[in-house]
Amino acid sequence: MDAAEFRRRGKEMVDYVADYLENIEKRQVYPDVEPGYLRSLIPEEAPEEAESYEDVVKDIERVIMPGVTHWHSPYFYAYFPTANSFPSLLADMLCGAIGCIGFSWAASPACTELETVMLDWLGKMLKLPADFLAGTEGRGGGVIQGTASEATLIALLAARSKIIKLIQADHPDRSETDIISKLVAYSSDQAHSSVERAGLIAGVKMKKIPTDNKFSVRGDALQKVLEEDRAAGLIPFFVSPGSASRPFCATLGTTPSCAFDCITELGPICNAVEIWMHIDAAYAGSAFICPEFRPLLNGIEFADSFNFNPHKWLLVNFDCSAMWVKKRSDIIGAFKIEPLYLKHDHQESGNHSHWQIPLGRRFRSLKMWFVFRMYGLKGLQAYIRKHVGLAKEFESLVRADQRFEISADVVLGLVCFRLKGSNELNETLLKRINNARNIHLVPCQLAGKFVLRFAVCARTTESRHIQEAWCHISHLASELLQELPH
Amino acid sequence: MDAAEFRRRGKEMVDYVADYLENIEKRQVYPDVEPGYLRSLIPEEAPEEAESYEDVVKDIERVIMPGVTHWHSPYFYAYFPTANSFPSLLADMLCGAIGCIGFSWAASPACTELETVMLDWLGKMLKLPADFLAGTEGRGGGVIQGTASEATLIALLAARSKIIKLIQADHPDRSETDIISKLVAYSSDQAHSSVERAGLIAGVKMKKIPTDNKFSVRGDALQKVLEEDRAAGLIPFFVSPGSASRPFCATLGTTPSCAFDCITELGPICNAVEIWMHIDAAYAGSAFICPEFRPLLNGIEFADSFNFNPHKWLLVNFDCSAMWVKKRSDIIGAFKIEPLYLKHDHQESGNHSHWQIPLGRRFRSLKMWFVFRMYGLKGLQAYIRKHVGLAKEFESLVRADQRFEISADVVLGLVCFRLKGSNELNETLLKRINNARNIHLVPCQLAGKFVLRFAVCARTTESRHIQEAWCHISHLASELLQELPH
Repeated sequence: MDAAEFRRRGKEMVDYVADYLENIEKRQVYPDVEPGYLRSLIPEEAPEEAESYEDVVKDIERVIMPGVTHWHSPYFYAYFPTANSFPSLLADMLCGAIGCIGFSWAASPACTELETVMLDWLGKMLKLPADFLAGTEGRGGGVIQGTASEATLIALLAARSKIIKLIQADHPDRSETDIISKLVAYSSDQAHSSVERAGLIAGVKMKKIPTDNKFSVRGDALQKVLEEDRAAGLIPFFVSPGSASRPFCATLGTTPSCAFDCITELGPICNAVEIWMHIDAAYAGSAFICPEFRPLLNGIEFADSFNFNPHKWLLVNFDCSAMWVKKRSDIIGAFKIEPLYLKHDHQESGNHSHWQIPLGRRFRSLKMWFVFRMYGLKGLQAYIRKHVGLAKEFESLVRADQRFEISADVVLGLVCFRLKGSNELNETLLKRINNARNIHLVPCQLAGKFVLRFAVCARTTESRHIQEAWCHISHLASELLQELPH
Repeated sequence: MDAAEFRRRGKEMVDYVADYLENIEKRQVYPDVEPGYLRSLIPEEAPEEAESYEDVVKDIERVIMPGVTHWHSPYFYAYFPTANSFPSLLADMLCGAIGCIGFSWAASPACTELETVMLDWLGKMLKLPADFLAGTEGRGGGVIQGTASEATLIALLAARSKIIKLIQADHPDRSETDIISKLVAYSSDQAHSSVERAGLIAGVKMKKIPTDNKFSVRGDALQKVLEEDRAAGLIPFFVSPGSASRPFCATLGTTPSCAFDCITELGPICNAVEIWMHIDAAYAGSAFICPEFRPLLNGIEFADSFNFNPHKWLLVNFDCSAMWVKKRSDIIGAFKIEPLYLKHDHQESGNHSHWQIPLGRRFRSLKMWFVFRMYGLKGLQAYIRKHVGLAKEFESLVRADQRFEISADVVLGLVCFRLKGSNELNETLLKRINNARNIHLVPCQLAGKFVLRFAVCARTTESRHIQEAWCHISHLASELLQELPH
């Protein structure tokens, strides 16, 4: 395919994309296919000879679309949102064309520099303490990670490396593996599975701290576990207040119920004993650009690192997970390995590959730049508020129905609810909802109860979709309850 | 921006992308900017109000392009290639629009299934042993990782988890950290920096095995180190024959000189003592689709895992790093953590997030599908052969000039060369080449010598570019040598 054909095909693809997104609600949100459906639809081997573009493109509807779960359908209420917006799609096209690999400043200065400035822009939108900004002279700063899982892992590794250095300074004879075997890191018992995984990878014991009746980690719970562990000869070094999504440390907005760890209580405890506090606000973080939600981030001043995913709720396509640290040197020191083929004249001018697991990186900050400018702060705030409003609307509908109960405070765009009754009853209801294919939800478990999660996800969700979803759920519940013996 | 405006702006962007790639050689390959150039060109904060698309788009040439290193310019000969092709750009547009997060089969069946089948297609192109293919009943299979660094880390973690389980089966009293402290993993002394980093992350000692005069790890060198380590009470468990790019284990095509570890010698040793052999062929792997280069992969039958980057040399845009294992259960067992909100009815139908560090993943296999079909195997082979031919052409030019020497065998698309003389002389030559900005190269170190690397990178590189590059280098060398006292 030459440039001339690309011009033609590219424009057709733009129309296909626009058609897909404009008409997405006409498609069934969750597919009907059975596992293994795709293999029989295409050849067993790649073709020897080139095929025509027409042949490829017609297979999109034949092979791909029947097996797609449509995350951007206004009937999709599962997991948490993943972002999608037109400015972001345009920026991604540009990113693909430039196709630079920004592992060092020299590998593409614009890629490294725009990222640093965009993370400052975003940090200012969130009113992060100035320590977290790079500016021209700051010691902190931000970086784009692929996912919050990676951010949690990076924070854990940086914290591990820092505590090892601290201990070895006093006890040069203690080996790294000996120290690691004594380390213990903490997170909320509501923390995302990726936090547990980070511990597995880093070879560090992870302890889950019990949450209160709001599914929040409180200061006294942390204090208690710390005392037990110190008595047992373990070295506490990392707390992730159970945040939004990937707690290793504190989380603001847990995945099951969007609960918030009490970082104003946890922070001073961590600071007093030099525990690294990482805050994971993967989902909830986007909301902090609104003054009315910013108090949820109070206590950030005690944190060492902070992360949330603009690719969830801030209209920047996946992948774009924003992470800030107060001291860049903590992160860089944990990873820096520099062979000759990666050296250049401006070594100290920023090298984000020292901040992440992969070496290569796309020019992802272009997506942030396009989205922030084309929505403006006010447009982004309006978007967040609209989703929160829709969640509140759904909550009211649930509360007005005596058969149902709300299972956790509705703070942002997630509603946790259930039929009053057994877990089996709610499992059956969820199965019927998902089998009907009109909308798509996933469950969670809260205090031993099976709970349905209703997350406002798509950019184009409107009040009428919420009303329609509730009608449908209510109708299926009626059918189910009628079948029960009284 | 609504869908109607996206249709217009998207088509303009398609033209911008086509113009950029068609005319890329008119741009200076390496930018003139100094560190910090970008910050002063844009506001210090995101705008409150939305800006127009015209304002954003005119900043591409004003703010971004002056700081871009043009990886797809035919004057770019640095590092290794990164792929870019029109079919891949089209597929990525579609991927962005669908915008699904494929962390489980249910999250988007097409995303998981196309990936499995594409990795089978690619495995067949490489003539991988059938053990590595998923098929409908295989125990092996492939997955797309973001980068080879992640593949190396995943292989190391899987190997670590496997050896821990093995040892604990016989000695249930030995703790994980105690076992990890005794582990030792091996790679070539030419291995990529990411291999050393994987060891740092996993907390495992890494040892570098000395290479022979072809920069290749041989069987006797491994044997010797193994015996020493066993005598010292260490547990050897992972070998990465120094390959192309990210050796933890064996590498096929090292980053400095594209040297190949002798896996036909290393494999039987590893198999005899149950050491996990991971093969990293990040750059070189693409060439194995050509029958004449496939012998370089002989010995793959001894490996446990294998990885290379289609996003380097197989025309699939970054990120797309292909990894295969003989036993999926080895990888999955190392990571599987499954909270309720990720469970679904078809748990066993493939869940690639168990194979990787992040949880989220884009629909990356679309790029492979478009590229494989629109080039066909023959088109891809022709592309590899053209690049190898251009490297051979450059090699001949160097060899014809008595002032220069070739520093390593030219096997694929990389030529390592230097002026006969001191390291300082070659450092000065490289500095002048890069300062002139006509072409862009990076150096490496081979057996203590400072060497210039000339990697054929861009898709549109032709013989005339090679001739022009050589003329330029030769001219700068003449100037430099004339300045020297005789």
